[in-house]
Amino acid sequence: MKLEERAALVKEWVGEAATFIRQQFETEIQVQTKSHRTDLVTNVDQAVEVFFRKKIEAHFPQDQYFGEEKMGDNPTSLNGPVWIVDPIDGTANFVLQQNHFAIMLGYYEDGEGLLGVIYDVMHDDYFEAIKGKGIRRNGEAFIPRYTDKQLDQSLIAINGGMVMRNVYDVQDLIVASMGLRIYGSAGIEIVGLMKGEIAAYISPRLQPWDIAAGMVFAEEMGLKVSQLSQEPVDLLQANAVIIAYPSTYDAMIGNFKNQ
Amino acid sequence: MKLEERAALVKEWVGEAATFIRQQFETEIQVQTKSHRTDLVTNVDQAVEVFFRKKIEAHFPQDQYFGEEKMGDNPTSLNGPVWIVDPIDGTANFVLQQNHFAIMLGYYEDGEGLLGVIYDVMHDDYFEAIKGKGIRRNGEAFIPRYTDKQLDQSLIAINGGMVMRNVYDVQDLIVASMGLRIYGSAGIEIVGLMKGEIAAYISPRLQPWDIAAGMVFAEEMGLKVSQLSQEPVDLLQANAVIIAYPSTYDAMIGNFKNQ
Repeated sequence: MKLEERAALVKEWVGEAATFIRQQFETEIQVQTKSHRTDLVTNVDQAVEVFFRKKIEAHFPQDQYFGEEKMGDNPTSLNGPVWIVDPIDGTANFVLQQNHFAIMLGYYEDGEGLLGVIYDVMHDDYFEAIKGKGIRRNGEAFIPRYTDKQLDQSLIAINGGMVMRNVYDVQDLIVASMGLRIYGSAGIEIVGLMKGEIAAYISPRLQPWDIAAGMVFAEEMGLKVSQLSQEPVDLLQANAVIIAYPSTYDAMIGNFKNQ
Repeated sequence: MKLEERAALVKEWVGEAATFIRQQFETEIQVQTKSHRTDLVTNVDQAVEVFFRKKIEAHFPQDQYFGEEKMGDNPTSLNGPVWIVDPIDGTANFVLQQNHFAIMLGYYEDGEGLLGVIYDVMHDDYFEAIKGKGIRRNGEAFIPRYTDKQLDQSLIAINGGMVMRNVYDVQDLIVASMGLRIYGSAGIEIVGLMKGEIAAYISPRLQPWDIAAGMVFAEEMGLKVSQLSQEPVDLLQANAVIIAYPSTYDAMIGNFKNQ
């Protein structure tokens, strides 16, 4: 199946999932904690994960599936076709704000990102990237406002815990920038990058489903993305990640050398 | 003139100002710095300030006017009728994001807040508070989702500089909460409070025009607002301010005792 056809299918699924998610605000959402007090999961994340899992299984029985709520195959390699899915990215925002969360899907073949989708559900803002074909936003060709951004002329987003502990002297980077913003969802921060609202997003622990879609967008937009160590992101484990416009990446990456 | 009539006039002016602001994104905006590198002002802030100043002068020649860009009377007392205006709150966001900024107006008589307006320009989201009459959002009665929020179950917004320097041990408050968000505009953070997306907003230096409108909303919603010292906000000078849901305010205010 051509990538465009896969993309059309995904858009249909995401629309259906988003309608379901919005309906859940009328009911009592069941919230549980995972690794710690502020790491949340709900019955809605789980239901949406099952929904995507089933859709992919029905249409692409040969493909591997890898999702946040661990209802997939949990592949040990990226050989062949692999889907990497975050049913609700920014679950704390979803629960506590009913806003500022995203659905994200990445489709890879042999480790190469071919299709990425990030949907800002409550702003009904749908971004889709196909390798080599650029980005579409809500069905229209999306021409990014910027091809590059300088650190000293831009706002940046850095994980709050890193800021507080000043890990890798990130406070120096904030002072060198025009200011810090924190939105609380990797998907929403990456949308901010695409719109040019921020020039960098840095997080000490992104799971594969937090960054798989974003990496396809980065490739199409010319953003740089890597581990803080400058090694490529490893989509089989959690990574400390920087995703940024080229000049901002270059201005920041030196800070992370002494890991 | 009745407050409702003043409110209707203000809504007309704000609509006109917002149309002008949106048009400016088609042209080259002239940016200058004020007190430091990241404290920005543009020809658009100034033009919008002049616009409001003239409207108020034409309709209410007796009233005092007090605005961010210092084109008003700079009153030394709040006696009688006083307008306190921020033509574009979040100028860095306006310049660098073309998003996430607000127009704010407060109308006071003898120091008592009677009318407050906060308009999230790019999301076309208009909030209006009239003392004793509650809040309207885009022309409809606005029933806040929450009457109270607990710190340990809520996201909070704190100025980035305070977070980095851990002034008053604010990092302890962040750890006690569900997480930190930073949006970069007092107006947008206060809209976040009204929508229940955050439970508190703390800033070390809010000018009168950054908080005058917000104080009218706080009164109508039952939010607590004060200087960090617990003294009332003084609208003739800059203040270190906390504005929060009651339980969150009570849980936080002890941290600021040893100023």
